[in-house]
Amino acid sequence: MPFVRIDALRAAPERLEALGRAVYDAMRETIDIPVDDLFQVLTSHDGTSGTLRYGEDYMGVHRDDGIVFVAITMRSGRPPAKKQALYRRITELAQEYAGTEPRNVFVTLTENEPIDWSFGDGVAQYAAATAP
Amino acid sequence: MPFVRIDALRAAPERLEALGRAVYDAMRETIDIPVDDLFQVLTSHDGTSGTLRYGEDYMGVHRDDGIVFVAITMRSGRPPAKKQALYRRITELAQEYAGTEPRNVFVTLTENEPIDWSFGDGVAQYAAATAP
Amino acid sequence: MPFVRIDALRAAPERLEALGRAVYDAMRETIDIPVDDLFQVLTSHDGTSGTLRYGEDYMGVHRDDGIVFVAITMRSGRPPAKKQALYRRITELAQEYAGTEPRNVFVTLTENEPIDWSFGDGVAQYAAATAP
Repeated sequence: MPFVRIDALRAAPERLEALGRAVYDAMRETIDIPVDDLFQVLTSHDGTSGTLRYGEDYMGVHRDDGIVFVAITMRSGRPPAKKQALYRRITELAQEYAGTEPRNVFVTLTENEPIDWSFGDGVAQYAAATAP
Repeated sequence: MPFVRIDALRAAPERLEALGRAVYDAMRETIDIPVDDLFQVLTSHDGTSGTLRYGEDYMGVHRDDGIVFVAITMRSGRPPAKKQALYRRITELAQEYAGTEPRNVFVTLTENEPIDWSFGDGVAQYAAATAP
Repeated sequence: MPFVRIDALRAAPERLEALGRAVYDAMRETIDIPVDDLFQVLTSHDGTSGTLRYGEDYMGVHRDDGIVFVAITMRSGRPPAKKQALYRRITELAQEYAGTEPRNVFVTLTENEPIDWSFGDGVAQYAAATAP
């Protein structure tokens, strides 16, 4: 269910794909998503028709053009400790798979509810699964 | 008010536009949005500078590169039955207008409040409309 | 912390950047964000591989292809008056910096919580800052 958008600057397809795998694997390990629960939009911006702007030192973290924005929409209910584990693991795997430095990984979460998902066939699968 | 992002792979402009119409018409029919309440970002990814990743069989639905991600932001308050009708109708019209198979239509909703919208001129129109 | 996506049609890099500055400066002035708290994805759509669709006269505001969609994710808690000031100021500065007419500025807000942000290094900085 998590729906993920990843945005990077001038990233080769292999790097985009490695970042996508990092986020998926981190979710599998830290927030208990099922196998194959993978829905991602990966975008490389060329700096002309699209670009990323960022504060170079906000919160005491130094960033550069290796920055990666990860925006995740998922169901509400994960406790803070799981979210913190998720951030940590995304960062570790982004470094391992894509060579992205931890300081360049930005993550934000937005939450919704089970009824807010349809995985195909026009059905709200999570709602149907729990309806009487 | 719904703000909609639609992402597809290697889609011709006509197909993108047909998907946009499918989502708009489905909203008109199922969740009572006014005429002309249309705000959409449609993106075709070329598989190189941008791509979509998806679980091929998550929740028992088989997907392929015909997949379409529909992410909708709208005001809270629609009951589950309306959301379910919306998913069903988007799927039907995506097939009718764009030839997209129902198994390839992914939808997710995120909700906010009336104060969270400005439709131009720097005004929060929905808030103003209900203010004393 | 606000995470901002700005989408426009056939915008030159200078115009995109000016729109980004307009939104950042407006936030600095109206909703008290710190210096350097800047995280933006700016996209120009060419009308072919990507496009924007909009209701030309919804809510009595006339729009054209100069339209700009501004989608902001930020922490909950800003009162309505601050949000209204934000819309007004974004619109004023978009006109001043980028020549965008006020009628063409669309803004929507989505809110989340302090735990929902990681600004790098795999840490939830806002949560850590307030934890005992």
